[in-house]
Amino acid sequence: MPNAVTLIVHGHLFTMQGEGVGYVPDGAVAIEGTRLVAVGPTPALAARFPQANVIDATDCAVLPGLIDAHMHTQLAPLRGVAQDVSHWMQLALAPYDRHLSDEAALAGSRLNIIEALKAGTTTMLDYDTPVPGWAEFYQQVGVRARLAPVINALPPAGMAGWKVGDLYPFDEAAGRASIEAALAFARDWHGAAEGRITVMVGAHAPDMMPREMLLDVKRLAEREGLMIHMHVAQGDREIEQMMKRYGQRTPAYLDALGYLDEQLLAVHLTEATEEEAALIARRGAHMALCSGSIGIIDGIVPPAHAFHQAGGLVALGSDQACGNNCNNIFNEMKLTALFNKIRYRDPTVMPAWEVLRMATIEGARAVGLGDETGSLEEGKQADLILVNLRAPNLSPVLQSPIRNIVPNLVYAASGHEVELVMVAGRVLVQQGRVLTADEAAIRDEAQTQAEQVARRVAEDPLHHELALLEPMRRGWL
Amino acid sequence: MPNAVTLIVHGHLFTMQGEGVGYVPDGAVAIEGTRLVAVGPTPALAARFPQANVIDATDCAVLPGLIDAHMHTQLAPLRGVAQDVSHWMQLALAPYDRHLSDEAALAGSRLNIIEALKAGTTTMLDYDTPVPGWAEFYQQVGVRARLAPVINALPPAGMAGWKVGDLYPFDEAAGRASIEAALAFARDWHGAAEGRITVMVGAHAPDMMPREMLLDVKRLAEREGLMIHMHVAQGDREIEQMMKRYGQRTPAYLDALGYLDEQLLAVHLTEATEEEAALIARRGAHMALCSGSIGIIDGIVPPAHAFHQAGGLVALGSDQACGNNCNNIFNEMKLTALFNKIRYRDPTVMPAWEVLRMATIEGARAVGLGDETGSLEEGKQADLILVNLRAPNLSPVLQSPIRNIVPNLVYAASGHEVELVMVAGRVLVQQGRVLTADEAAIRDEAQTQAEQVARRVAEDPLHHELALLEPMRRGWL
Repeated sequence: MPNAVTLIVHGHLFTMQGEGVGYVPDGAVAIEGTRLVAVGPTPALAARFPQANVIDATDCAVLPGLIDAHMHTQLAPLRGVAQDVSHWMQLALAPYDRHLSDEAALAGSRLNIIEALKAGTTTMLDYDTPVPGWAEFYQQVGVRARLAPVINALPPAGMAGWKVGDLYPFDEAAGRASIEAALAFARDWHGAAEGRITVMVGAHAPDMMPREMLLDVKRLAEREGLMIHMHVAQGDREIEQMMKRYGQRTPAYLDALGYLDEQLLAVHLTEATEEEAALIARRGAHMALCSGSIGIIDGIVPPAHAFHQAGGLVALGSDQACGNNCNNIFNEMKLTALFNKIRYRDPTVMPAWEVLRMATIEGARAVGLGDETGSLEEGKQADLILVNLRAPNLSPVLQSPIRNIVPNLVYAASGHEVELVMVAGRVLVQQGRVLTADEAAIRDEAQTQAEQVARRVAEDPLHHELALLEPMRRGWL
Repeated sequence: MPNAVTLIVHGHLFTMQGEGVGYVPDGAVAIEGTRLVAVGPTPALAARFPQANVIDATDCAVLPGLIDAHMHTQLAPLRGVAQDVSHWMQLALAPYDRHLSDEAALAGSRLNIIEALKAGTTTMLDYDTPVPGWAEFYQQVGVRARLAPVINALPPAGMAGWKVGDLYPFDEAAGRASIEAALAFARDWHGAAEGRITVMVGAHAPDMMPREMLLDVKRLAEREGLMIHMHVAQGDREIEQMMKRYGQRTPAYLDALGYLDEQLLAVHLTEATEEEAALIARRGAHMALCSGSIGIIDGIVPPAHAFHQAGGLVALGSDQACGNNCNNIFNEMKLTALFNKIRYRDPTVMPAWEVLRMATIEGARAVGLGDETGSLEEGKQADLILVNLRAPNLSPVLQSPIRNIVPNLVYAASGHEVELVMVAGRVLVQQGRVLTADEAAIRDEAQTQAEQVARRVAEDPLHHELALLEPMRRGWL
């Protein structure tokens, strides 16, 4: 009978306990079942668990698994078809998005989940339509997931063909159907896979449903005890819609509706002012910051620093593969630190340790999982990663007078240095290979499905609106 | 007897010929000796070279090797000890730098070169003191190098202990010695290793030597037919020195000296205004843009877009491991595109194809190697890389209506997807492994040397000036 305890020993442990990074030299964690049962110096834990199965983490950083607070994994088949353009949604994404079949969406989601998992993401907040097989794959692959089925009142035909500046039409029947579908999904999946899978209410955005429907969604979320995962002030497009329809900018509108509380994970805040960001933070809502995607899509650095300074909790998100173009929290940590230094022209803003906390313990708290994950702490779920510090870009490792590991994890790592990923005590990635899914088959299926999507796009006259056709003609792509 | 021709077939070829990226589907290149002898569709080249040795590049992008226009490889032992601080040079770098022995510098340089090589950099402009073994390692490992021995008139004791705002003391004897050392180095190494190694004149910066010495350096470079590789307007520190000493900002000072011509590779331009950048470009000088390091050190996006718009050639550089913290041109391409979108709040600024050209053909021209490398073109040196597009973060691959490869190489790749690196017809990296050096031994030696440096720093009372001691005390590192 195998021993019930696994010990990971001799690591550079970053527990994220306390206010900093909680470093433990020559550190160890003990895992029993899905949980951490001890965290501390290797000699002490080795003495306490002499019969344990041992994983040697020499020359590795041992970190809590990373939290990705905002993904649209189903868009992975469209990786790289939408960036470097104005009006990203209308002139780049929409002509593709309307041809994304359920099969393509599922194939893309699988690819994206594998990509993120290999880069050390153990908790994924996925904001998508619940196509068949989506949640099942999360169950199979073994990561922690918070799934947010999309709720909006947009017409089923999608947004292609709408002119920039037009007020969106609402379709109330479609809106009701999306609420019903989300509710049914929550009943099936909230708390599934031994609690690894939970559900959030995926209100699309304040501009994408009528006021009454937005209020219904809030009541429903309260009744079901679910958090709301919603895009807020996500672009000038949204602010323009809100001003035209309600004469208010999004933050004031939501505040008047009583929407800004700890139940809300507010995604992006791209167009929020520093004052609006601080207001949202003071009301108790949390923020998902997608530095990479907002940088690519809008050329904007959202006011996360102001949100943070006002006492708000910030989590990091990688958003979608068509407009970022990767789903990798190491990438988001680096971009977040750098973009904010640039926004404030100050190299001391958003230091490495601060963004590492956003990617781990602060992010976990922001998404409502602070009691379960985000730090290496006795009693918490065993969600952790081992990062190889022998990689040339992470070497050398220095301890004193300045310890260099955290800065290098944030500024030099790319995620490919992740050697082992464990979620709820189960090893999902070992020596950089995914153990719980067939990566090559997933890649091939995503390729096949993406080619079919692209063929349908090419046959659709609407594709002539694509802003990137001109660069194609000029030989730039 | 082995066949003299190698064919790389079935790749997604980006030749960088013409004004765009020069895409060739199912493309091939033929290599004989150090040079490309044919570039074109696979069927045509396979018919022309039926006896060739074949490398299959199916599912790979084939690109010109990347150009890194500004590195300080010898600082690699200090990776991660200097960032997130104000006054980076004085309060973070200097207390370490003065304890960097020749042995440590060499060990660091080796590590950094391996790091960059694995990430697809085939041409390295290295700006350092010529310690014994430095150029020899470039010769051994097989990359293309342009080495710039540092010339300045700073006192040998280094900059530690100087107060922020003090005018630097000049030491004319040290200045003359650094010129002599550079000249001797150029005589030994310019054109060495079958022409792979060439030398540039590494004038440190306009503020780091007296006016007469700066003019001597220019005359010397003209006499020897060497380009000048110099930091220009690299920080508010420099501008302050120039104003105090000469009453002029750097660009006007250099223009008056006749310094701004095609012989000059002007590095950074951190503090240059858009007008100053445009002036430098119009005078014919070239620019090395280090987005990552200047973002970390200063929180600034240099005016490369204005330089480019004025007709200047821009190359990308990764700078040093203590303040970037990686040496990876994929990282620089991504940061350059994103930082400039943010600087101008415009997602169309610096599109993917533009920065890919900076990393290849435009970069090669900027550093004076445009006839030899930077594009896949008959007659040029066979400097190229294969990038695995089956990596999850680079999948799927789409061709039509929008080809997604270049955007994904810029925004999603990290450099770890580089499978094969060839320089001058020789394979240096295969399946991601370095063939011409012992990576593990190099890493171990860099670790040993770096620990010794750190020990000397800890014993030096000057280390109490380190700005990062406070974060250490607070448990943030």
